[in-house]
Amino acid sequence: MEDERKMSISEAVAMNGGNGPCSYEQNSSYQKGVAAAAMDMIKEALPTTLDLYHLPLSSPNPIIRIADFGCSTGLTSIQAIETIVQCLLDLIKPIKEPRFHTLEFQAIFSDLPTNDFNTLFTNHLPVRRRYYAMAAPGSFHGRLLPTASLHFAYSSYALHWLSRIPQEILDKSSRAWNGERIFHVNSPAEVVGAYSAQFGRDMEMFLSARAEEMVSEGLIFMVVPGEPDLVHDSQTTFGSELELLGSCLVDMANEGIISKAKVESFNLPEYFPSEKELKQVISRNEFFHIERIQTLSHPKMHVAFPTPESRSLFLRVAFEGLLCHHFGNELIIDDLFHRYSLKVAKSLFFLKPESHESISFFVVLKRKKSEENM
Amino acid sequence: MEDERKMSISEAVAMNGGNGPCSYEQNSSYQKGVAAAAMDMIKEALPTTLDLYHLPLSSPNPIIRIADFGCSTGLTSIQAIETIVQCLLDLIKPIKEPRFHTLEFQAIFSDLPTNDFNTLFTNHLPVRRRYYAMAAPGSFHGRLLPTASLHFAYSSYALHWLSRIPQEILDKSSRAWNGERIFHVNSPAEVVGAYSAQFGRDMEMFLSARAEEMVSEGLIFMVVPGEPDLVHDSQTTFGSELELLGSCLVDMANEGIISKAKVESFNLPEYFPSEKELKQVISRNEFFHIERIQTLSHPKMHVAFPTPESRSLFLRVAFEGLLCHHFGNELIIDDLFHRYSLKVAKSLFFLKPESHESISFFVVLKRKKSEENM
Repeated sequence: MEDERKMSISEAVAMNGGNGPCSYEQNSSYQKGVAAAAMDMIKEALPTTLDLYHLPLSSPNPIIRIADFGCSTGLTSIQAIETIVQCLLDLIKPIKEPRFHTLEFQAIFSDLPTNDFNTLFTNHLPVRRRYYAMAAPGSFHGRLLPTASLHFAYSSYALHWLSRIPQEILDKSSRAWNGERIFHVNSPAEVVGAYSAQFGRDMEMFLSARAEEMVSEGLIFMVVPGEPDLVHDSQTTFGSELELLGSCLVDMANEGIISKAKVESFNLPEYFPSEKELKQVISRNEFFHIERIQTLSHPKMHVAFPTPESRSLFLRVAFEGLLCHHFGNELIIDDLFHRYSLKVAKSLFFLKPESHESISFFVVLKRKKSEENM
Repeated sequence: MEDERKMSISEAVAMNGGNGPCSYEQNSSYQKGVAAAAMDMIKEALPTTLDLYHLPLSSPNPIIRIADFGCSTGLTSIQAIETIVQCLLDLIKPIKEPRFHTLEFQAIFSDLPTNDFNTLFTNHLPVRRRYYAMAAPGSFHGRLLPTASLHFAYSSYALHWLSRIPQEILDKSSRAWNGERIFHVNSPAEVVGAYSAQFGRDMEMFLSARAEEMVSEGLIFMVVPGEPDLVHDSQTTFGSELELLGSCLVDMANEGIISKAKVESFNLPEYFPSEKELKQVISRNEFFHIERIQTLSHPKMHVAFPTPESRSLFLRVAFEGLLCHHFGNELIIDDLFHRYSLKVAKSLFFLKPESHESISFFVVLKRKKSEENM
């Protein structure tokens, strides 16, 4: 019941809160496009995957609980909860069984304790709603909810965040040392391997915790940003972005504005798996069946950014907290992202976005019955 | 499942957030004293009032849920949750029955959506805890939790907040018009009656909502600030404070700083019942037995304020949001509380605190079995 994990990274990785010009909320049109695509997928997948009659429900007061892991300020989270509730209401409508007539719904919005839950509650949570709303603060790599209490889990653009930087990439004597790079783009295979192994361990922790929290036959819907199989990192939009951001930090270190040692010890705790890798990682766990893994696609996912500055903000809202946490006062965050905007203006991913790919995977998992994993 | 209440007042009544010099957190030593007294009462009352063997528990995964209604930033809330959990663990320890061995606990922190839940999660919620923690945003005058899901409710210094100002006291043609007064101190009997009736309606809404949420034999622990029977309002500390605050607003209106009409339409949505009245109001509901009503007393409740300014802050943290909401930009809040500090310095309740009384009631209610209220 206790979260034993050290929280050094996770304290800093919550998205920028509020709804100001540098907030996640004002700079997440790509994520909104992804969410729109995911909603279509859920509407299609839920009715065909769910066995409503075998879903364990409490008696005499049946309730279905739906949790979003990594809800941020709730912009797309509420959309997901309402989509799932509506799918269930549509399924239940024709059923005559009395236990479904008094069914209640509970939505659980979960994210790190440093997440801006205040904005979620005051700006986004609808006053009129068909579910009881709750927030559960904590890391989704550990237990957050009571045993066998959860029926549906959703997690979008959250599971690629690693719980920690693999230690070997910070170790100068290791072959996996990552030098001045801030990500595994164009890094030695050992670095990529260390990132990949951490992603595997984190996914295992996520699934083990959810396995305890979920009822048998409960469903997980995941949206995970990934990379196309066999495409080199630097050809993906995200890989190119991070390479540029890293080069700005190196410039600032060369100019003596920030310390070189701090640049060397800074690495982004994110990993983008390929479809094959994602499937392998999930398959290693014994509690969930993979019902489907699909590539997400939706017109709104192809967001055109009008200016290099807006393209720059897209990255800033996600990494500002982490950068400030690591570099402290010595890093002027406006300076960094100004430099980054200048480089973005000349970048291929800004000038010719069609030359770069960014993809996401939509995954549906079903909790096995307890006897199946004995 | 929907909150039908208009939220005009309740949006503004959350305590000052954060932990700065004007935060509730830094100015609630009196409330901490009250909480300390309440903890002693809970430790004594819970074991003698609870019938653990008849408390409905889910199977096969038993869980006990404990909610605090009006948690603010959690300072005393977490203390209450942990006290209740510890009492239950002490009770359960000698029991051999297997269903108690896997018992889990869930704490639900509830307050208005505008409450500062971020501070609760980041500053107060312990990382190591014996319960799953959740927040439920919304008004406790309506439903917040699923049917029959709650075992223990706690509410301290929250139920005296009214959901609205009774309309008649704003109506110049009514005998209950409250004129320039901002509270029912030294008001006509009709004003006191209107406040009292609103308190009765609000308590009824609170208890009706909790009756649906709680399991039979579940317990409510309430701490409600009140006034001694047969003591005139102006002799109580709180009554005197509000009378002074009101006189500062009148001064400012006379000087043309704020409009007289706005002072006339401003009334504090709080009511302090006597013990007799509280008992009557609760007895009107059909769902709960009164197990006990006692006057709270604790050495820490008698807080000496070193300066008039600190005495002034005590009121400011509670009413700043409400005052700003009503008066808007025209009211300079620093000016108001500066004037108030000057009057406090000469007040009897500051100079001779022993001449004034402020009391609170500790109430224990037990949810009747469903058949008892048929």
